[in-house]
Amino acid sequence: MFYTLQHNLLINQKIISYLLLIKVSVKWLLAPVNPADINTIQGKYPSKPPLPAIPGNEGVGEIIAIGSNVKYLNIGDRVIPNGTHLGTWRTHANYTVEELLKVPKEVGIVEASMLNVNPCTAYRMLKDFVELKPGDTVIQNGGNSAVGQMIIQLCKIWNYKSVSVIRDRPNIEELKNYLTSLGADEILTEDEIRKTQIFKTKKLPSPKLALNCICGQNALEVLRHLAHGGIMVTYGGMSREPLTVPTSALIFKDITLKGFWMTAWTKVNMNSKEREKMFSELGALFKDKRLKAPPHKLVPFCQYQEAVINALHTDGRTGVKYILDMTKL
Amino acid sequence: MFYTLQHNLLINQKIISYLLLIKVSVKWLLAPVNPADINTIQGKYPSKPPLPAIPGNEGVGEIIAIGSNVKYLNIGDRVIPNGTHLGTWRTHANYTVEELLKVPKEVGIVEASMLNVNPCTAYRMLKDFVELKPGDTVIQNGGNSAVGQMIIQLCKIWNYKSVSVIRDRPNIEELKNYLTSLGADEILTEDEIRKTQIFKTKKLPSPKLALNCICGQNALEVLRHLAHGGIMVTYGGMSREPLTVPTSALIFKDITLKGFWMTAWTKVNMNSKEREKMFSELGALFKDKRLKAPPHKLVPFCQYQEAVINALHTDGRTGVKYILDMTKL
Repeated sequence: MFYTLQHNLLINQKIISYLLLIKVSVKWLLAPVNPADINTIQGKYPSKPPLPAIPGNEGVGEIIAIGSNVKYLNIGDRVIPNGTHLGTWRTHANYTVEELLKVPKEVGIVEASMLNVNPCTAYRMLKDFVELKPGDTVIQNGGNSAVGQMIIQLCKIWNYKSVSVIRDRPNIEELKNYLTSLGADEILTEDEIRKTQIFKTKKLPSPKLALNCICGQNALEVLRHLAHGGIMVTYGGMSREPLTVPTSALIFKDITLKGFWMTAWTKVNMNSKEREKMFSELGALFKDKRLKAPPHKLVPFCQYQEAVINALHTDGRTGVKYILDMTKL
Repeated sequence: MFYTLQHNLLINQKIISYLLLIKVSVKWLLAPVNPADINTIQGKYPSKPPLPAIPGNEGVGEIIAIGSNVKYLNIGDRVIPNGTHLGTWRTHANYTVEELLKVPKEVGIVEASMLNVNPCTAYRMLKDFVELKPGDTVIQNGGNSAVGQMIIQLCKIWNYKSVSVIRDRPNIEELKNYLTSLGADEILTEDEIRKTQIFKTKKLPSPKLALNCICGQNALEVLRHLAHGGIMVTYGGMSREPLTVPTSALIFKDITLKGFWMTAWTKVNMNSKEREKMFSELGALFKDKRLKAPPHKLVPFCQYQEAVINALHTDGRTGVKYILDMTKL
């Protein structure tokens, strides 16, 4: 009995030692606060970490120590999470190599910290639902959100025309100028999208793809402009209203409605060539400054409450991303 | 000048004679009255015939004369329309061979008259959207409609489980017995579908495919039961309400919404092998009495108003199909 216990302890110690040999120690530098992180804490998000848990799914860190059996990663390497629930809202943690992705140092630290969710969401939605050709139109609402700004920039890079719907606000011209500077072709308020003639006059071809993070009446107005056989991809529901579609749009206009969830895509494609290609392309675009991060505010880690409250209340609508800065404790 | 005119007249006469040589003369026997026929007359249907026009898209006729250059068809052959807007609500008309499809005489005359729309709609919706395996579940609303009855029967023939939602009514048990006799696995009222546990208890697997001709709240209740990654195909909107879908169903349950329109499918696939195969399979199933026509009422052609008014008011909900009988003038 005593022998068995001792033997088991020995085995456990061996396993622990082995685990340490293949692990790396990461010092987290920056970690964005996304609405999904807060929804996870609230228990409202369908992807639930086992408890107890550290929040945070995105971030960038630096490797400060490696086990003797670790290959492919070195001290000083920049890394981002390869998967969900790594708990980036902390200063230090140990991970296996498989849980991390190395990012070239030429990618800015802020850009690297946001690489995992928003740019990937925009990239996949533009790639996986319709085969777009240069000159085709993509329409989206929430054009000022972090994903929206990525969509505008990727459309410009890939030569698609983008039409972005935003909510009216006092500084509307300023915002329109900013989104135009990112490469937007048309920026319309919710009122303007209802009345616009840009597709009827053939100024732009009718969109084959609509990207929707709002739902409700806004999405319906966007949907009306889709070309015959077009598709609307929903990746958010900021209006907290469901998506409503006229029967005739489905039957006679052959419109398709689908959803997109980055977390689910990543689970299925964790070790795919497609995922590797995406990170390499996005990394190169950030490195070459052809893609830029949305407006953001670094918040010292000790003031995390400010970041959480702002991310919660603005719900991504301002387009300003709050990022926890673990280099300032 | 005079010469040219005379010459043109001669050419025109030659064309007319040629056209007569390749045409066949059809005596229409039966022609169903579908809601879509009435919507076409009202100008509400997107598929519009050039005016003046004779209504009627479905029917069965007999060839009573053929031009001397006609191949493949003979006097006495049973035929149905091969395409839309042939104007079946009349006693006689001339067509080219391409406008008609020959039907074996073993297919009953009533079944033949309804072959074009409802059975084909059910067949395509079960074939073209999800790859179903024996034992998979299909859920539908409007289970008592003409298409709904076809779906129940085809599911039984192909070994899929079918769950049909119908509206509550005084003779509900009688209707349930009738649909069960067609092969329905589960028949639930709108109230019962809200509360049912048949999928939670695994009595039946969650449906991969939902077929919707109602929209509104009814469709939403049906949609809630779809399996992860399932698809809802809308082919009608009898509630006259739009289709509403919760954002979470699209994003987290990966539900897809599509539409189906038989007319559009036929236009694209007019001369396809797929269409030939469908008619041959459906024809054989009717011939072998494995498929039966829904309850119907033959109305003498001179009393066409009765058929039109009934088809208009019941809007297909009773499941009784009104058929114009041109053999009784």
